[in-house]
Amino acid sequence: MAECVFCDIGARHIDRDTVPASDRVYVLPALRQRPRNRFHTLVLPIAHVRNLQDADPCLLAEIMSITASLTAAFPAKLGANGSFVFQSNVEPGDLPFHLHVHVVPRFDDDEFRTPDPYGVEEVPRRDRLAQARELRGLLQPRRSL
Amino acid sequence: MAECVFCDIGARHIDRDTVPASDRVYVLPALRQRPRNRFHTLVLPIAHVRNLQDADPCLLAEIMSITASLTAAFPAKLGANGSFVFQSNVEPGDLPFHLHVHVVPRFDDDEFRTPDPYGVEEVPRRDRLAQARELRGLLQPRRSL
Repeated sequence: MAECVFCDIGARHIDRDTVPASDRVYVLPALRQRPRNRFHTLVLPIAHVRNLQDADPCLLAEIMSITASLTAAFPAKLGANGSFVFQSNVEPGDLPFHLHVHVVPRFDDDEFRTPDPYGVEEVPRRDRLAQARELRGLLQPRRSL
Repeated sequence: MAECVFCDIGARHIDRDTVPASDRVYVLPALRQRPRNRFHTLVLPIAHVRNLQDADPCLLAEIMSITASLTAAFPAKLGANGSFVFQSNVEPGDLPFHLHVHVVPRFDDDEFRTPDPYGVEEVPRRDRLAQARELRGLLQPRRSL
């Protein structure tokens, strides 16, 4: 088993909450989510890619196209007033870093900020499984470019 | 003149700080930047596109490829320890909203957060012009897809 948790999840070795989005990309409910921003979702390559600039152009296009499908779906499906997309290229020294794009639905008066000054909660597994089912309904799996 | 300031800047009607990045995309030093995160940069389409999901796939790929060129360049060119990329799809009611991706260089102990709880400063025009010159050196203009 690889040392990278996102590689392991992408290979479905340790989790079944993943949402297949294409041959090269999967989607996952974030483990930690702000109570006012449920459905905080990650979009990430199955293969280990460290940073935005390390993704080949087709993979990057695919990740962003899937991200845009989520930002398009969130208002109607979740009652969101929009979304916030972010991605960090600062590598923590102690972890194998695996590129992931955060897609956060925004709601009225959610006072969203990142990093969250009050911490974020770990979402119970049953809730993440329910979110994964909903996300599967929002995304049509597509062929890679 | 259009009512959208980013359309006007893209058409070079009201500003010359822009950095041409491709036939369809330009780059601009942000007007407001945190003192510890100078070279906060925007990547945006010349044409008026409101949201991530409204960009056609080629345009979105181009915007993100240029974004990745900046995240690749910032560590060596600016001494950054990485970067933070973000983009909001929450439309303020009172402005014509024009898609823009923020690319923020990160530095040790910068305590970056967004939105910034302490406000951000307007950067003097001469400093933004100097940043635009540097950014031109980081980006090779490319043909659109």
